[in-house]
Amino acid sequence: MADPLVLFMPSGKRGRFPAGTPVLEAARQLGVYVESVCGGRGICGRCQVEVQAGQFAKHGITSAADHLSPVGPKEQRYAEKRDLKPGRRLSCSATVEGDVVIDIPLDVQINAQIIRKAADTRVFERKPAVQLCYVEVEEPDMHKPLGDLDRLKDAIERDWGFSNILVDQHLFPQVQKILRQGEWAVTAAIHKDSDTGQPSLIALWPGLHNEAYGLACDIGSTTIALHLVSLLSGRVIASAGASNPQIRFGEDLMSRVSYVMMNPEGREAMTAAVRKAVDDLIGDVCGETGVHRNDILDAVFVGNPIMHHLFLGIDPTELGGAPFALAVSGAVHSWGGQLDLETNEGCRVYMIPCIAGHVGADAAAATLAEGPHRQDEMMLLVDVGTNAEIVLGNSERVVAASSPTGPAFEGAEISSGQRAAPGAIERVRIDPETLEPRFKIIGTELWSNEEGFARAATATGITGICGSGIIEVVAEMFLAGIISTDGVVDGSLAARSPRITATGRTFSYVLHDGDPLITVTQNDVRAIQLAKAALYAGIKLLMDKLGIDHVDRIRFAGAFGSFIDPKYAMVLGLIPDCELANVSAVGNAAGTGARMALVNRDYRREIEGTVRAIEKIETALEAKFQDHFVAAMALPNKIDPFPQLANAVKLPERKTLGGAEDAGDGAGRRRGGGRRERARP
Amino acid sequence: MADPLVLFMPSGKRGRFPAGTPVLEAARQLGVYVESVCGGRGICGRCQVEVQAGQFAKHGITSAADHLSPVGPKEQRYAEKRDLKPGRRLSCSATVEGDVVIDIPLDVQINAQIIRKAADTRVFERKPAVQLCYVEVEEPDMHKPLGDLDRLKDAIERDWGFSNILVDQHLFPQVQKILRQGEWAVTAAIHKDSDTGQPSLIALWPGLHNEAYGLACDIGSTTIALHLVSLLSGRVIASAGASNPQIRFGEDLMSRVSYVMMNPEGREAMTAAVRKAVDDLIGDVCGETGVHRNDILDAVFVGNPIMHHLFLGIDPTELGGAPFALAVSGAVHSWGGQLDLETNEGCRVYMIPCIAGHVGADAAAATLAEGPHRQDEMMLLVDVGTNAEIVLGNSERVVAASSPTGPAFEGAEISSGQRAAPGAIERVRIDPETLEPRFKIIGTELWSNEEGFARAATATGITGICGSGIIEVVAEMFLAGIISTDGVVDGSLAARSPRITATGRTFSYVLHDGDPLITVTQNDVRAIQLAKAALYAGIKLLMDKLGIDHVDRIRFAGAFGSFIDPKYAMVLGLIPDCELANVSAVGNAAGTGARMALVNRDYRREIEGTVRAIEKIETALEAKFQDHFVAAMALPNKIDPFPQLANAVKLPERKTLGGAEDAGDGAGRRRGGGRRERARP
Repeated sequence: MADPLVLFMPSGKRGRFPAGTPVLEAARQLGVYVESVCGGRGICGRCQVEVQAGQFAKHGITSAADHLSPVGPKEQRYAEKRDLKPGRRLSCSATVEGDVVIDIPLDVQINAQIIRKAADTRVFERKPAVQLCYVEVEEPDMHKPLGDLDRLKDAIERDWGFSNILVDQHLFPQVQKILRQGEWAVTAAIHKDSDTGQPSLIALWPGLHNEAYGLACDIGSTTIALHLVSLLSGRVIASAGASNPQIRFGEDLMSRVSYVMMNPEGREAMTAAVRKAVDDLIGDVCGETGVHRNDILDAVFVGNPIMHHLFLGIDPTELGGAPFALAVSGAVHSWGGQLDLETNEGCRVYMIPCIAGHVGADAAAATLAEGPHRQDEMMLLVDVGTNAEIVLGNSERVVAASSPTGPAFEGAEISSGQRAAPGAIERVRIDPETLEPRFKIIGTELWSNEEGFARAATATGITGICGSGIIEVVAEMFLAGIISTDGVVDGSLAARSPRITATGRTFSYVLHDGDPLITVTQNDVRAIQLAKAALYAGIKLLMDKLGIDHVDRIRFAGAFGSFIDPKYAMVLGLIPDCELANVSAVGNAAGTGARMALVNRDYRREIEGTVRAIEKIETALEAKFQDHFVAAMALPNKIDPFPQLANAVKLPERKTLGGAEDAGDGAGRRRGGGRRERARP
Repeated sequence: MADPLVLFMPSGKRGRFPAGTPVLEAARQLGVYVESVCGGRGICGRCQVEVQAGQFAKHGITSAADHLSPVGPKEQRYAEKRDLKPGRRLSCSATVEGDVVIDIPLDVQINAQIIRKAADTRVFERKPAVQLCYVEVEEPDMHKPLGDLDRLKDAIERDWGFSNILVDQHLFPQVQKILRQGEWAVTAAIHKDSDTGQPSLIALWPGLHNEAYGLACDIGSTTIALHLVSLLSGRVIASAGASNPQIRFGEDLMSRVSYVMMNPEGREAMTAAVRKAVDDLIGDVCGETGVHRNDILDAVFVGNPIMHHLFLGIDPTELGGAPFALAVSGAVHSWGGQLDLETNEGCRVYMIPCIAGHVGADAAAATLAEGPHRQDEMMLLVDVGTNAEIVLGNSERVVAASSPTGPAFEGAEISSGQRAAPGAIERVRIDPETLEPRFKIIGTELWSNEEGFARAATATGITGICGSGIIEVVAEMFLAGIISTDGVVDGSLAARSPRITATGRTFSYVLHDGDPLITVTQNDVRAIQLAKAALYAGIKLLMDKLGIDHVDRIRFAGAFGSFIDPKYAMVLGLIPDCELANVSAVGNAAGTGARMALVNRDYRREIEGTVRAIEKIETALEAKFQDHFVAAMALPNKIDPFPQLANAVKLPERKTLGGAEDAGDGAGRRRGGGRRERARP
């Protein structure tokens, strides 16, 4: 008779094992990651599994709870002392006795701390670089005078299979005391970054220590977002965000590089500022959850190249001019202490690789999260900022570039533009008949034409237009026929509506006739055209490279993408034509990618390999950029059709009112200015 | 026709290579280590070799200078700019054109610093853990936006074969500047401790950097000895020694452990003291030679277990009592900076493993240097101190133990004993007829009965008896019949000589009738008997373990061994019978072992494996120790014959005068006192 068949879900891995094999052992042999801190002694409770009972015809398995061994004394003891939910088994104790389907519950969470709902609740298969290993160590013996640390290493090798272990310096003076405190039972934290890497002993506690945490952090130019993650469950325990304090040295990236170039102490000051901000966030998430800083054992950081470099203490000056040379593009391994973070002394830091001088570790992390390289459909991943980072591809081939959009999308360079803050207009609709607008501001859910809006708005006032508002108002102006295909405000409409007003030789649209007066000027429209043309031209270069004329899916990463309506982005021609249902915002995908690399070290190898394979396009060096740019100045585009958009939205007839030449000039000026200047107003 | 045959000396490795193969390449393929910093560009001059011309019938080779290619332009250029001695070739440029015998000169020393004659001029085959690698790095390219560091790593892998390189943190902020200073040519220092280990980039210089140094240091309880070694030639450049400043916390090891136990800050103070002393010595050797601290890239430290632990910042309290548990016995990898040494920021530290709680890394290093495990003859290696460290064995099997000799051999516990210092009696002869002595003191080469001695001695006075003096005087008293086989001073001789005087119930021998009066009392003889019996009993236990009744060679390591006359040591029965020609002092063998591990990382693996294989005997646990001890109280021994000694020295007839029981009691007291106490007076 054949050995029992065991199928693990959700991985689907399966194999036959002799009756009596512990479920944990079967999982290990199949490469299914089941956490266990105590090494099968039935005391940590981390290895819980559930039987899925029933007929699994597809697999030829009839599974039942009693196809595992009856609950034994170890499990009984654990269930009495702790809280073992009905149906849960300890896989170290339960043995295989018949065909069975085993579910690895991804939510196993012992001694649960306060769990805050995180923005993204995706849970990933765990294979962390840091593992807790409970061991019982032989006592010293004069006949075998091996050192305490050496016997500890032997025990770890015997029970956990880690050989040739390196030991962190800070542990040497502590080992003897901890072993004696724990009466020769201790929990060791072993860091092993890759399957072939050398393991390191990084932390040690007396007795059973059942808590291990990690940090996933995205250092943005504007915002730093940090997640505290349980390495034992993979769950986000708390998240926190803060403004990047480097803003006081310069609003955008290039002004911070300039600050470093002009101030000898500038680099150090900015490095210290960002490290302190991250450390403060660690304090926040620890304070909120009661997690000890000392239990933080691993961390993954991502950021754009300049943030990446400044965080590591590297002068970013080289990134300020051609050839935009990164000091380091590959993955970086460091220590929390080396980066001035108060964590466990042995805490490791991993930084995801950067793709290119303007396509950072954040873009790489977003790529890891969204996985264009893991699927056959052609995916476009865009992170819009002062420089847009663009990744395009599928499982066969991935290309990437950055494009100098400038700060218009963030409300800068716009006459009534402002940061997204209460009082800022974020949604706009224009009646094509009357040309009358209605809008929403941040701070109330009411439209401006709804009852109670005026009262609701008194709290904040109506103060300007934020990034998503500017996209919508320009798109709605286009859909309402106020601006032409080539982006010119139609002055002839002044006869139909008082909202069209002359400003010197050009015309503006009055969005809110209050104090302050909020208008969209011809220059504002031009600024948006230049920004969106730069983005689209970059995307087109990548499409050229792959020889494709359409994409299957579009993902907006980052804060900007979370607030804009994909439809309006497409109406303006920021992005190529695509089925609207397949266009979505994915929030802080970079942070998600960092979490993935934190909870599963295989993702580190995946993104390292992907980044190596990604073909990098330097837009500034591509002759066709200019042509694409000029065509993209038109709304949505002078050349490219938008058939799927046209199915969803009634696009106006093409009309041109002249001025495209101006746009072309603007583009020429912008390109000629070089990268260091292009981010400046 | 067969390819040319190439034989490398002194290794004797040989192989056939196609004509045109560079000699350096042939050496690499055969595993012959030839240094090269510039990677075959003919600029560093480190890869020099010589042709041995002539008939080598045994190897079937007729070798001649012109069996290498003629001197090419690279060598010509080097010879003109630098100093290439006649007959020397650059093995990167010279190619094999016919059968040839190649000598790797071990003295290759470019840009030679001042070379001080070291105590030990042995030169070892080099294979250092740190290697200098000159590389030319691709300039940044917008089309291939790999980071500067990543291109550097690629270049190192391409030219030097190191893959998957880790990078020291401190280099991240420096890489870009150094690459640009060197105009994309740099010298990288790569640390790789083992053939399978992961290489690390630890230092980087612009252009060609042709200097790399290491430290080999033996931290003794009394003295710290440090060698500065060129990693590129393997030669000792300078040596320095200093008293261990921990002496102010306690004269011997156990009183230092007591100090730690009684003073909360004691451990830190002693760690700081020894680290500062080492750092000061580094300053001394650098100052003397003009070597920059920044060029020190590797270091090997050895010491007894308590020094080893204190240097690493580990509390040695556990070593003060049974079971004498070492915190760490295996090899330790650390960094210079972590140990408060001012060296290159990337400087690595390696500590040779300890054998047991009382047999330290110093004994392991001495084992490495003398190599009992590398030969078939049975070698006894003894390092006499407060605890004697004893290693015995051959290529088949090695055993080790420590034995509690106490401080008598160092002149303590002796009524007229003193440290070895000017004025101390160090050599003694006694006329067996007249019982009149003559002696030498430290500070003059004259014997006390020679003309001019009195004048020479006025500078220092005649102040006492040092360790080697006490060995000689007791041995000479035995040879002259003044003391019996069982160590009793023969009072009946008082009738023959006024030098035999009564002191209460026992008798003394007047060695110097001056001020101070220097006598050897019955208690002094007893103290020496106890010490030597402990040493001999330890040796006998190891001989029992191996089932042998004699040894082929005896090596005394350490300062004590350097000053005593092996003949007298054997007359007293400190050591077993052995041909006198095969007994020798080997000086600071521990320091030599440290140097070996520094210049050739294979020696690290060798001693790690040897230490693992050494069988450790805890003398306190062996029932037969007491029997051996009692027998060894006799001179030279109650049971064991000394036939080879008898061939060289006329031993007196055995006579006993009683008192052996006393000796037995003394031994019993000593053993019962436990290890912590046995080192105290």
